[in-house]
Amino acid sequence: MADEKKLVESITAMEEDFAQWYTDVVKKAELTEYSNVKGCMILLPAGYAVWENIQKELDARFKETGVENVQLPMFIPEGLLNKEKDHVEGFAPEVAWVTHGGGEELTERLCVRPTSETLFCDLYAKIIHSYRDLPKVYNQWCSVVRWEKTTRPFLRTTEFLWQEGHSAHATAKEAQERTIQMLNVYADFCEEILAIPMIRGQKTDKEKFAGAEATYTIEALMHDGKALQSGTSHNFGDGFAKAFGVQYTDKENTLSYVHQTSFGMSTRIIGAIIMVHGDNSGLVLPPKIAPVQVAIIPIQQKKEGILEKAYEIKEKLNKMAIRVKVDDTDKSPGYKFAEQEMRGIPVRIEIGPKDLKANQAVLVRRDTREKQIVSIDEIPQAITELLEKIQKDMLEQARAHRDAHTYEAKDMESFAQITAEKPGFVKAMWCGDRACEDEIKEKTGATSRCMPFKQEMISDTCICCGKKAKSLVYWGKAY
Amino acid sequence: MADEKKLVESITAMEEDFAQWYTDVVKKAELTEYSNVKGCMILLPAGYAVWENIQKELDARFKETGVENVQLPMFIPEGLLNKEKDHVEGFAPEVAWVTHGGGEELTERLCVRPTSETLFCDLYAKIIHSYRDLPKVYNQWCSVVRWEKTTRPFLRTTEFLWQEGHSAHATAKEAQERTIQMLNVYADFCEEILAIPMIRGQKTDKEKFAGAEATYTIEALMHDGKALQSGTSHNFGDGFAKAFGVQYTDKENTLSYVHQTSFGMSTRIIGAIIMVHGDNSGLVLPPKIAPVQVAIIPIQQKKEGILEKAYEIKEKLNKMAIRVKVDDTDKSPGYKFAEQEMRGIPVRIEIGPKDLKANQAVLVRRDTREKQIVSIDEIPQAITELLEKIQKDMLEQARAHRDAHTYEAKDMESFAQITAEKPGFVKAMWCGDRACEDEIKEKTGATSRCMPFKQEMISDTCICCGKKAKSLVYWGKAY
Repeated sequence: MADEKKLVESITAMEEDFAQWYTDVVKKAELTEYSNVKGCMILLPAGYAVWENIQKELDARFKETGVENVQLPMFIPEGLLNKEKDHVEGFAPEVAWVTHGGGEELTERLCVRPTSETLFCDLYAKIIHSYRDLPKVYNQWCSVVRWEKTTRPFLRTTEFLWQEGHSAHATAKEAQERTIQMLNVYADFCEEILAIPMIRGQKTDKEKFAGAEATYTIEALMHDGKALQSGTSHNFGDGFAKAFGVQYTDKENTLSYVHQTSFGMSTRIIGAIIMVHGDNSGLVLPPKIAPVQVAIIPIQQKKEGILEKAYEIKEKLNKMAIRVKVDDTDKSPGYKFAEQEMRGIPVRIEIGPKDLKANQAVLVRRDTREKQIVSIDEIPQAITELLEKIQKDMLEQARAHRDAHTYEAKDMESFAQITAEKPGFVKAMWCGDRACEDEIKEKTGATSRCMPFKQEMISDTCICCGKKAKSLVYWGKAY
Repeated sequence: MADEKKLVESITAMEEDFAQWYTDVVKKAELTEYSNVKGCMILLPAGYAVWENIQKELDARFKETGVENVQLPMFIPEGLLNKEKDHVEGFAPEVAWVTHGGGEELTERLCVRPTSETLFCDLYAKIIHSYRDLPKVYNQWCSVVRWEKTTRPFLRTTEFLWQEGHSAHATAKEAQERTIQMLNVYADFCEEILAIPMIRGQKTDKEKFAGAEATYTIEALMHDGKALQSGTSHNFGDGFAKAFGVQYTDKENTLSYVHQTSFGMSTRIIGAIIMVHGDNSGLVLPPKIAPVQVAIIPIQQKKEGILEKAYEIKEKLNKMAIRVKVDDTDKSPGYKFAEQEMRGIPVRIEIGPKDLKANQAVLVRRDTREKQIVSIDEIPQAITELLEKIQKDMLEQARAHRDAHTYEAKDMESFAQITAEKPGFVKAMWCGDRACEDEIKEKTGATSRCMPFKQEMISDTCICCGKKAKSLVYWGKAY
């Protein structure tokens, strides 16, 4: 018993110190390890396997919409980065510069890509000539570098893994449709696979991407009531195309600029999985994303027939494409339980000598800790149903938590009070002026998360200036 | 007809200028595009899709042997790179240095990883404590940077994609077994999936990896008779472990150094696919690695029922997990044929009004150009068999070519004559001295490719110095 206590007691309770709880879970679940490179993390097998599952699922969804994968260089020559004014102003302060290569000083510095709009534009200028070459919807899975002073695993690191999609279209309408389409791909993926409900909406001008005409976002609410921007999709209009000369001839042989978009999701989303679903025993992974869905833990495994039965059950579940592991190490069952819980494995099957005699096993849900005893013959069916139920319940649970922490404010006073006392989203009306947005942030610490697609008029006036309201905005303190 | 002629005529014949043929195929098959970053290439969808299939297949084979994927930073602090003497001497001249980040000069330069032995050792020193933590067999899929002056797509570029596996073991024996195991994984993969036969063997000390005790390699013969090193697996002994302090306590509580290995395969292997299988009409892809396995090309596609039938066939084949595309663009059939051939799609199905009336279609093999007419109802079965046959024949064809270009030399004179006149592998005996290896290279341009596992004694003496021979070596001019 000492062992498992040690594993769990070493985690700070989330009610006590949420940030420390997060760090403890990441460490104890062996998702990441600190590296000797300032601001960069190491993704260990348990962490990387989650990313692999995200990649696999998201990549399949991308390809269904016609996305093609490519790979561009990790370096951007300084001159190329400088081509689009807003873009370079947004990114230049946080890039890393390569100044020497092959023993010589370079004639032009290369920055390590913080994002690849400039490289994609350069490529598109080369390969797009006619309307027949459109649309181009390319994506790459890679890492990018943005220099950070203070870092936290998954949430903010100097180097992080992501995908960045970049498309070019003949018309503004098509570009806008693709922008919204990809935002919905992200939101559906998060809801169906990660069991995280999302607010879909548009960023204010203040919060939009450097160089974009419009940025769309999906926003999730963490367990501590803070918001996390979880994926973005940008419509660039023809701004980049003009800066980089990306033109095509249409059927009438007229030369026009293309309309572009980009869209990205990163390992940051793993931070959301942790902070939406985790509890004081560690990680809780939704079945559809869990690298291991079922842990079979034998009790008194040295007794005859126990391990054999455990492997037999594993084989049966494997054949149904369920991801199963038998923990046959020499640790105590209690330690194994604690470890399975820490790692967020959705279901564990306990099987000991008494169970074997009764031809039964105990199934325990990670999310609710609910136990059920089932006949060994019924395990495949029971596990299939249980995994589905857990997936569904986790989404409902997360939605209930978010809804219970979403407030409305009709004036500045109540807005300030809510943001001070009740962590969560606050829905409030806004006039559209940057000055009000700045003032709200300064007074309350809350930033505009998005103008949701589902607009409501909860009052007529801006909570800050009292002028006519233009949009409903979700506000919140954010990661 | 003008169109398709243009597509094919623009390719240089391989007999005329092999290097130019290679460049033409890479360009016309739209595998890569040049970037504005010196020495770096862009992988376009057709090229990246081949890499994705390589990744998928190789990754599954890795995981079957217990490999776990991780992700380490792309930067290595200068001090860390300097820790193992041979290693830093091997790589320092070709690295890129980051000197500035976030607007400030760094106190310690960071090199962009040319390979990650040092980072893995640093990680292993942190996470390996006891025999229970062993073995560790980690791998990462990433890109690495080695500064190059002259580059060629896939074969030599400043940045390239690869995987690098790094393992740590309790004993020297286990490390050696893992080294050979992974070499065989590579060789089997190349033979079974890429249809490229490999010579498996050990590198001489001159050719081994910087910091390794022993390097093993798989070597393939290209169509022009040059060799290509296609994958390597290294046994590091405990050299790196001593430099980085990677130690573990065994069951008796004794502290020992771990024994390490590393193994890698890169996008270079795509160069091998092109140069082993390609012909004067372009790329020829083995079915198992081809992103598109079957191209359905409708003839007179505007006629009633043609396109419908094409889609119907596509659906049927898709259901059998065959990767199919219907080319319904407004290009001429001849152009579509030329394009399908250029891209190396293994089989095309031609279907026109006459075929439709006769309930038949024409199947054409890309590798041999052989045609067969089959009933539409029999297409699924015929395609399945044909893809299997092509895969098998391509391996046999490549093996026959290699064997026909593998020579034996028993003295320096005949060795020199063969290397001057007959491009290919030359098998010849060697005494084991570096001086002879250097002299052979200087006189003939041939380098030692490997000491094959299948040793023969084709003569008793070293072809260079006449002293007692130690090993049979495969020699050749190499990429």
